[in-house]
Amino acid sequence: MAGPKKIIIDTDPGIDDAMAIFVALNSPEVEVIGLTTIYGNVYTSLATRNALHLLEVAGRIDIPVAEGSHVTITKGTKLRIADFVHGVDGLGNQNFPPPKGKPIKQSAAEFFVEQANLYPGEVTVVALGPLTNVAMAIQLDPLFSKNVGEIVILGGAFAVNGNVNPAAEANIFGDPDAADIVFTSGANVLAVGINVTHQVVLTDDDRDILAKSNGKFSDYLCKILDVYFSYHREAYSTKGVYLHDPTALLAAVNPSLLTYAEGAVRVQTIGITRGLAIFYNKQKRFGEVTEWSDKPSVKVAVTVDAPRVVKLVMERLMSS
Amino acid sequence: MAGPKKIIIDTDPGIDDAMAIFVALNSPEVEVIGLTTIYGNVYTSLATRNALHLLEVAGRIDIPVAEGSHVTITKGTKLRIADFVHGVDGLGNQNFPPPKGKPIKQSAAEFFVEQANLYPGEVTVVALGPLTNVAMAIQLDPLFSKNVGEIVILGGAFAVNGNVNPAAEANIFGDPDAADIVFTSGANVLAVGINVTHQVVLTDDDRDILAKSNGKFSDYLCKILDVYFSYHREAYSTKGVYLHDPTALLAAVNPSLLTYAEGAVRVQTIGITRGLAIFYNKQKRFGEVTEWSDKPSVKVAVTVDAPRVVKLVMERLMSS
Repeated sequence: MAGPKKIIIDTDPGIDDAMAIFVALNSPEVEVIGLTTIYGNVYTSLATRNALHLLEVAGRIDIPVAEGSHVTITKGTKLRIADFVHGVDGLGNQNFPPPKGKPIKQSAAEFFVEQANLYPGEVTVVALGPLTNVAMAIQLDPLFSKNVGEIVILGGAFAVNGNVNPAAEANIFGDPDAADIVFTSGANVLAVGINVTHQVVLTDDDRDILAKSNGKFSDYLCKILDVYFSYHREAYSTKGVYLHDPTALLAAVNPSLLTYAEGAVRVQTIGITRGLAIFYNKQKRFGEVTEWSDKPSVKVAVTVDAPRVVKLVMERLMSS
Repeated sequence: MAGPKKIIIDTDPGIDDAMAIFVALNSPEVEVIGLTTIYGNVYTSLATRNALHLLEVAGRIDIPVAEGSHVTITKGTKLRIADFVHGVDGLGNQNFPPPKGKPIKQSAAEFFVEQANLYPGEVTVVALGPLTNVAMAIQLDPLFSKNVGEIVILGGAFAVNGNVNPAAEANIFGDPDAADIVFTSGANVLAVGINVTHQVVLTDDDRDILAKSNGKFSDYLCKILDVYFSYHREAYSTKGVYLHDPTALLAAVNPSLLTYAEGAVRVQTIGITRGLAIFYNKQKRFGEVTEWSDKPSVKVAVTVDAPRVVKLVMERLMSS
């Protein structure tokens, strides 16, 4: 394949979503061919508004935004919105003016299917929120899971406590049924969980360096980062913030920044561990048929070169 | 407290149960004041027969055996019996003659309650099977969880795949509702999961040493170990067997053989991760109330001095 990798970022901006989008726009290895929106850090309507706003900040209004689902794939589930992490506007309570642009008419799922058909095997979807849109694309087009090049997921808390509750990570918890559809779809899936992203920390010092760099992206981010730092101090007693979304984005840009295990992932959709993704490493041979038997393998990140990821994020945020 | 620690072994013999019972009988630090029986490796009736048989082999018919529950605490659940691991008789398909002794009239739960009342704070229950009997004791006597000194559980697959399926370990899976009652009871609970016991392996070479020692216990065990070794070769591709029950027993005898984390454990009782025990390390402060909030802390084993455990098991099995 010649040229940069085509990526679509499915996003719920979100402070670390903004960082990931800016990093992507400054990554020559990839070409962002669209943003799609989803609820999570904010409701979907606000995610769309924020996605358009961030592209305008970046001067990239050439990139289309497709609005995604407003509800979970199994309708009737109450949404969990993490505005206490990112601010009520999702971008650090800065009251930015509304964007001038509008989303395209296609839904996120329709856009996924169209692009995967246009460029079979060449499109990477980087899913930074709940997996509703991706699951809808799988349901919309039986060939989507074959046509899409790769689906990189920020989600899961593999062998560690979750961040919504001790069992579940927020993006999987946001739509467990959708997540189970995606993990078992047979698509080329790579999941980056908080077991990995909790190792990738942007410190107070890093933030000072960003602030002094006077780049367009770093200036913008330093305005919105306060709320995110406050949340981390309170919830985790850390003087720094986790780079969830930028880490998943960089896994799509350069997979060699992480290492992976391969196996089957199923998602619990009910009960006290609702939203828990369990990875089966295929080591033990079970006598009985299990819910993981005959399910396709996906890749799950197990280690990350955290200093290199932080360095790359910093460099790319400061380069314009 | 003067004298050895009083322990009751709740057991479903079971080849590694036999090892644990023999190790206990040769451990001067503890006094085995009773065996109680439960389904798991075999049905409860056979567990009772095997418990009586093992005490006769050991020449310890002074120790009472109390028969436990034949069904899970929430009635109507189909039992999962692991005869494919231990043989249809639970003891390596050796067709031992029936025991001469009989169980006492009390049920396992009644015996637990009586002994904990007789010796408040001094009785350790070592639970080597599903936790039905222990949960019934908690339901029978509201003071049991305070009166019992300690409950040492062999159970759970903390942060690793289970041995029944990718989510669940056999003893917790055997009665998830009972396990959740025990973990949230407020009793002094210490859980040793397969994340730890899978590090404690008795090798072919160890077995040869046992065989040549000509002790009463080692001779007996070498007869029954074949089935257990075969299962491990097939399921795990290991030339050796996991010392699950002896490790949990030794955690009761000498807790310093392992290290522990403290936190709340809840058990999923439904769905594809039924029987999964999730440990919350109380590191993150969640904004929302969770199913783990306000639940008492228990200890969960995280590391084990495996060479020392194997050495102790060997020494004590060869000392008579």
